[in-house]
Amino acid sequence: MKFTILTLFPEAIEPYLNSSMLWKAQKDKKIKVSLINFRKFALDKHKRADDRPFGGGPGMVLKAEPILRAIAKLKTQSAKPKVKILITSPRGKQFTNELANKWAKKYKELVVIAGHYEGIDARVKKILKAEEISVGPYTLTGGELPALVIVDAITRQISGVLGKEESLEEKRVASGEVYTRPELLKFKGKSYKVPKVLLSGHHKKIEFWRSKNISGYRVTGNGN
Amino acid sequence: MKFTILTLFPEAIEPYLNSSMLWKAQKDKKIKVSLINFRKFALDKHKRADDRPFGGGPGMVLKAEPILRAIAKLKTQSAKPKVKILITSPRGKQFTNELANKWAKKYKELVVIAGHYEGIDARVKKILKAEEISVGPYTLTGGELPALVIVDAITRQISGVLGKEESLEEKRVASGEVYTRPELLKFKGKSYKVPKVLLSGHHKKIEFWRSKNISGYRVTGNGN
Repeated sequence: MKFTILTLFPEAIEPYLNSSMLWKAQKDKKIKVSLINFRKFALDKHKRADDRPFGGGPGMVLKAEPILRAIAKLKTQSAKPKVKILITSPRGKQFTNELANKWAKKYKELVVIAGHYEGIDARVKKILKAEEISVGPYTLTGGELPALVIVDAITRQISGVLGKEESLEEKRVASGEVYTRPELLKFKGKSYKVPKVLLSGHHKKIEFWRSKNISGYRVTGNGN
Repeated sequence: MKFTILTLFPEAIEPYLNSSMLWKAQKDKKIKVSLINFRKFALDKHKRADDRPFGGGPGMVLKAEPILRAIAKLKTQSAKPKVKILITSPRGKQFTNELANKWAKKYKELVVIAGHYEGIDARVKKILKAEEISVGPYTLTGGELPALVIVDAITRQISGVLGKEESLEEKRVASGEVYTRPELLKFKGKSYKVPKVLLSGHHKKIEFWRSKNISGYRVTGNGN
């Protein structure tokens, strides 16, 4: 999968792309990630990427041309067929693991245009047939974090990126309480033990405890 | 607000914290952000922060002591009363703008422990009375992006961080289609105009168009 992120702040997000799982996936040639600062494609000498909205109102709107010109250049360079273009937006469709999995299989190239709050000139969406996508019910400074969320979640779904063991983990989001060494944890004069069943070696009992444990957790979680 | 993020990968997220709105909020002393790599607080000579889960199963679990020791040190340094401790987790409660707003008002200090996928030794949550929080229905490599999402969204809600104009924007997530210059956009031989009403100067008509426009957008969006 080839990811391209269009952003006004590439330096703010580049280090995340070069860390951990995403770094390894790039090294293993499972993914390729490019960051493009579309300000470079602005037409005027001041390289202005935003302007006041027509019809009035507060805030600034990202101009269409710099983004369209950046994308146009991209297409010339790679003429692959299975391309999806996303615009991050608090009004967009909710991003989910199901979408991540579907897109990982369906597309060869994913372009994410990082919007900023007041939005992007609506002609961009129309011309590019782009889809607006949201990572959750909250407002952020810009689309940079959503772009990273999308790239991270989709990369995990690409075949061969995660080890066999981690792929198994992926299917158990609600794995409940987990414990590791020490068996007896001492903190500020108190002792905290690992539940006995987990030390028993009885696989059936452990499985039962874990299934019970998940339900218990969930009820509490929802009640908050 | 003082934010502290506990993470194994501070270098992956630090640049985001030093960019844009978050950088300005720190400069203006509206927020303070610290990154702590809790691996430094591991007890063994190899500075191991994770270990195999008790009871078996794939994946690794983050050990309790390094995190508890990091937090203990933190508390000694700042003994403020209004502290909230969060653990990022795909099983946690959904983070929202409402929570961001509530927490911005209620707390003076927010600690975010960036979990990694298989989770953190459950005794950490119990001992610290921490709350598990999720930024959305998808799986990520770790809690680093969720931590940034939480810090970004909450900072926007802190009084005086956003200008008056931007604060207004904050209330209009569903502001519908926006347009900026040029009035006539030419791209690949085609022309794209700004809706005439937005150029009319009739505020009532513009307001009506915008309200209509939002509904239209939403219906289409949900239908996808």
